[in-house]
Amino acid sequence: MQKLCFIGFGIVGQGLAEILVKKKEELKKKHDFDFQVVAVSDFIKGAAYNPKGLDLSRLLELAGDNKISEYPGARTGWDALTTIKECNADIVIEVTYTDIKTGQPAYDHFRAALESGKHLVTTNKGPTALFFHELNALAAKKGVKFLYEGTVVAGTPVLNLNSLCLAGNRVDEVRGILNGTTNFILTNMEGGKSYEEALREAQELGYAEADPTADVEGFDALAKVVILAQSLMGAKLGEEDVDRTGITGISLEDVKAAGREGKRWKLIGQVTRDGAGVRASVKPQKVDLTDPLAAVGGATNALTFVTDLLGEVTIVGPGAGKIETGFSLLIDILTINNI
Amino acid sequence: MQKLCFIGFGIVGQGLAEILVKKKEELKKKHDFDFQVVAVSDFIKGAAYNPKGLDLSRLLELAGDNKISEYPGARTGWDALTTIKECNADIVIEVTYTDIKTGQPAYDHFRAALESGKHLVTTNKGPTALFFHELNALAAKKGVKFLYEGTVVAGTPVLNLNSLCLAGNRVDEVRGILNGTTNFILTNMEGGKSYEEALREAQELGYAEADPTADVEGFDALAKVVILAQSLMGAKLGEEDVDRTGITGISLEDVKAAGREGKRWKLIGQVTRDGAGVRASVKPQKVDLTDPLAAVGGATNALTFVTDLLGEVTIVGPGAGKIETGFSLLIDILTINNI
Repeated sequence: MQKLCFIGFGIVGQGLAEILVKKKEELKKKHDFDFQVVAVSDFIKGAAYNPKGLDLSRLLELAGDNKISEYPGARTGWDALTTIKECNADIVIEVTYTDIKTGQPAYDHFRAALESGKHLVTTNKGPTALFFHELNALAAKKGVKFLYEGTVVAGTPVLNLNSLCLAGNRVDEVRGILNGTTNFILTNMEGGKSYEEALREAQELGYAEADPTADVEGFDALAKVVILAQSLMGAKLGEEDVDRTGITGISLEDVKAAGREGKRWKLIGQVTRDGAGVRASVKPQKVDLTDPLAAVGGATNALTFVTDLLGEVTIVGPGAGKIETGFSLLIDILTINNI
Repeated sequence: MQKLCFIGFGIVGQGLAEILVKKKEELKKKHDFDFQVVAVSDFIKGAAYNPKGLDLSRLLELAGDNKISEYPGARTGWDALTTIKECNADIVIEVTYTDIKTGQPAYDHFRAALESGKHLVTTNKGPTALFFHELNALAAKKGVKFLYEGTVVAGTPVLNLNSLCLAGNRVDEVRGILNGTTNFILTNMEGGKSYEEALREAQELGYAEADPTADVEGFDALAKVVILAQSLMGAKLGEEDVDRTGITGISLEDVKAAGREGKRWKLIGQVTRDGAGVRASVKPQKVDLTDPLAAVGGATNALTFVTDLLGEVTIVGPGAGKIETGFSLLIDILTINNI
């Protein structure tokens, strides 16, 4: 029986919660996984703790009205840090908002979870990218797991693919489409739209934010590249070591010209082994139509592993979505359950 | 320390052997995997057994001259079944030739390995497809592992991707390019060649056999579809339950016509959940250029999983090759080593 604690209970947390409610019996039967949610703490939606377990369906209902603190019979009002330190959970699920500049407040949550000997699963890119080696060292010291499949390409297996399915290979390079918003825009420009029109459509559909900088200037992909470089290749690097260019300089004419060459512009995040270190970049590249990455359209993501034994292996799948990202937390929790 | 026994020592077996020689230290250090090869038995190349271990580099040299039976100080001359039953290996690596009609003689080797309480890893499609549930039941009864990642798409993770990285998902459909020869031919026909010309080139390059029936009529893909249906969906079906059509009816004109529609002909192996059972087929399909399978050219393989939580996830990678297929055995051996 795994006792779970949600820190943050927004879209992604609720995505996992919905999966857990729906698949409770199946997960027990097929994967010998049984769980109890003992705590939820969300800055807006409220907080509740019961060491003997909370009803997850009830929590989802209360979350809809920001009334988790009205959960009957529970201890309420604990903030995130108090909840992490004081609750009796085995696993902390950290899904608060991400700040890719400072990593806060999630970084404090991460440290508190690991320091108190609790496993940590997260989709939170900021602190994972910024404090990767420190957090892994702390988890190792405390004898707990720190898992973060969902920080890169949602629940599409990327980190698990590497560690579980490609074990024995040396990965010499990864390159991929790590941001759905920019890929949606570039795909739309191939349909004849200008950058401005394509961006506006992405904003109308909810793919891009009102301030699209984090996506279109490559900062979102940058954080993912930093995580890939550190986790797949053990590199020690920061965001400042990555050569970053966004897609704002790509015009409709550039897109058309690439088409005439049998190529297609993609925003590619790339990490290449280079002696003892790595070279890392996020920038628009013209990829050949025969490259599996060229076929990846819309908001879909993809990553190619260049390996010594298998050559090139590419995985293509969703890079966002409530349930798709919620699943990334489930697979990490199942990994912990199998220890 | 895992004691290994090779039954068959052709291209694929030697591929694994080369990896093991090259990566011995790395595998020990990174994956806590240490091994000793105690037996090899190959119908043509000879047989040698030493319960205290054989030198793998020496075996590779002797195999080149079909002189394994001249290995100094070893017990020689044992046939496959005697070797499997009498040797002290923990893991039997079965890589003799595949017969997709009868599964023999590999089926006898499989049974002997499992009956004698040894783990079994293989790339041998025939017996795996034909006797899937029986073999799995026997392995479970004996408390040993029966692993066969390399029977479908070489070492590109397909079965491990499902069981390790997509756990928790319900797989509702898989469809993919499971035969490199036919994909090479179809890709070449898009370059303007007739079926006959494209087939001849595939034969000259060693992709297609002198008698190309198994590939071009879809029998090779059929065996893989049967393994996928049984292993991913638990279906009970035989090759006779699969709707099979090869690519010999696809003309250059068909290929051109598909191109004008924005589509591309691919030989698609497909299994779809249908109530308590499945529908399975191998047949040419016109896939849309926006489908990740459309971009898979040449001898590369790919498989799309349609899942309830993640939607569509596609893996693209090598479907053949000495080292690429040898790796499939290594990953299965590492899985056993991690038990």
